[in-house]
Amino acid sequence: MSNAPTPAQADAEAILDVMQAFYDALEMMDAPAMADVWAGRPADVCVHPGWPMTHGWQSIRHSWRTIFEHTGYLQVSLSDISLEIGGRIARVCCTERRYSVYAPGTITSTVAATNLFVRTEEGWRLTLHHGSPVSGQRIAAADIN
Amino acid sequence: MSNAPTPAQADAEAILDVMQAFYDALEMMDAPAMADVWAGRPADVCVHPGWPMTHGWQSIRHSWRTIFEHTGYLQVSLSDISLEIGGRIARVCCTERRYSVYAPGTITSTVAATNLFVRTEEGWRLTLHHGSPVSGQRIAAADIN
Repeated sequence: MSNAPTPAQADAEAILDVMQAFYDALEMMDAPAMADVWAGRPADVCVHPGWPMTHGWQSIRHSWRTIFEHTGYLQVSLSDISLEIGGRIARVCCTERRYSVYAPGTITSTVAATNLFVRTEEGWRLTLHHGSPVSGQRIAAADIN
Repeated sequence: MSNAPTPAQADAEAILDVMQAFYDALEMMDAPAMADVWAGRPADVCVHPGWPMTHGWQSIRHSWRTIFEHTGYLQVSLSDISLEIGGRIARVCCTERRYSVYAPGTITSTVAATNLFVRTEEGWRLTLHHGSPVSGQRIAAADIN
């Protein structure tokens, strides 16, 4: 009897490792680490909370650089993580609790996030991040200004 | 030589048909039609603009009924549609322009949407809808109140 993980378990672990690397890159505001996480394709999609949809890795990379330049500190903790693998694409949904420091002050916010991963020759990579503000916290954040 | 669609074309057409049925059900505020569109599984996920994540079809169905009960009229037009099929899961991203009539007045809003479809024994079905408010229009909508 072997204790080796099944292919599905190995995929799930690899996907969650890439997702952890994504949130690490986000918290560290590390643009090269962020680039390593993404598939880097024209088909990649990103929606930052409150932003319109950004299509294609070149535009997405620019958006992360803009965010990193305007953020002093960012901490993210995750909950409600759910994963489904459907062949070459896998999705992980989660709730992000973000503590951010910007020029006007600090913001504690909740973000509903969908992350999609695509199986590439180099392994699983992020191909879609969709984060959306959850209303209660959006109102609280507005009180700061 | 055959003009029959390739399997990928047939899948793409079937997925976009289900997506059209989803937006038709939304505009018609038709709960049974909405139920036909979704996979109806515990793994289904829905994020309405500004809402936290709703997990599982039973809770998602309840959320649609609540929305339909509080909406007088809803019209949605789509743009920026992009599709990727990755085996058993497919994603369609798009921008929704919504014109809604609620008790306080009318709201014109833009929503960034990710829709995921899963291949079931009955064909492709919606398994994730993630809609998020785009900020400019959110501010405009707040002016109504």
